[in-house]
Amino acid sequence: MRILGIDPGLQTTGFGVVDADVHELRYVASGTISTTHLERGDLPARLKVLFDGIGELRERYQPDAAAIEIVFVNVNPQSTLLLGQARGACVTALVACSLPVAEYLPMQMKQAVAGTGKASKAEVQQMVKRLLNLPGLPGKDAADALGLAITHAHAAIATARIQEAGKVARRNTSAYKTGRVI
Amino acid sequence: MRILGIDPGLQTTGFGVVDADVHELRYVASGTISTTHLERGDLPARLKVLFDGIGELRERYQPDAAAIEIVFVNVNPQSTLLLGQARGACVTALVACSLPVAEYLPMQMKQAVAGTGKASKAEVQQMVKRLLNLPGLPGKDAADALGLAITHAHAAIATARIQEAGKVARRNTSAYKTGRVI
Repeated sequence: MRILGIDPGLQTTGFGVVDADVHELRYVASGTISTTHLERGDLPARLKVLFDGIGELRERYQPDAAAIEIVFVNVNPQSTLLLGQARGACVTALVACSLPVAEYLPMQMKQAVAGTGKASKAEVQQMVKRLLNLPGLPGKDAADALGLAITHAHAAIATARIQEAGKVARRNTSAYKTGRVI
Repeated sequence: MRILGIDPGLQTTGFGVVDADVHELRYVASGTISTTHLERGDLPARLKVLFDGIGELRERYQPDAAAIEIVFVNVNPQSTLLLGQARGACVTALVACSLPVAEYLPMQMKQAVAGTGKASKAEVQQMVKRLLNLPGLPGKDAADALGLAITHAHAAIATARIQEAGKVARRNTSAYKTGRVI
């Protein structure tokens, strides 16, 4: 399964692409989509850059699923409104690509990547580097996005294992019943 | 020029389509895009309904331009975040359709439609009905969206008149200069 992680932001949106199976995680790509070259007040143009950027990632990497961070209310309500609109554009771009979208809190990502929901940005960068065998530290936004992809990989693998355990349990139960009938 | 007005909301997004030229405004269509049939927590699915809904409006009515309301910070920061995401999805849908997007404050719309930025929702409904010769009152969300389309029509006509006045002034100035030279 190939997963596209997105850390949404109006100025800089981080992305990270990871291949995952039960045995390993493999780094594919990461980086940022930036809108800082555009006029600050031209929100439609900035949201279009996010939408088109995610569309290009979809074209290039053909992910099977997406994971995006759940953002928090900011101290400044106007910033909350802007961040909300940027995240809305990112989620919209993902669903417009027909990608299933999973949402994770920052602490869920930190827990999955660094083992504690209180990990610092630097710790997340270090752990992402280690988990994906990267030659150097990823940038902060890209590290968060890769962390979200890893979180989703863990969740998907855990779900698959639970389903598998269910199948085994059902098989064993029916064998036992068969045994009793004989 | 055909204008699509959008009053964004996560539960209900109003839309209104108006044809405008220098002499008259003509009602084309109005209504709402609703996400209330979906699970409240499934934000990606709800944003997809807004995105697809606006895409359908574009297909059906082929507007030349769009006008969308600038939303305000809510008393509840969580509501601000949700409204921001809904508006982000709507703006993204409009720019994804390659529509030029104009943004207006609620008081600009009220001023354009009812002559005062402090008009009530009911006054906006009444004035929209009168300006577009509607047989009945439009719903509140649809009335706001039609009001935004009307606001954009007024702004576009005013801009066209100013440009025309500029051309006339330049023509007169050059005639005067020619006169002096002769």
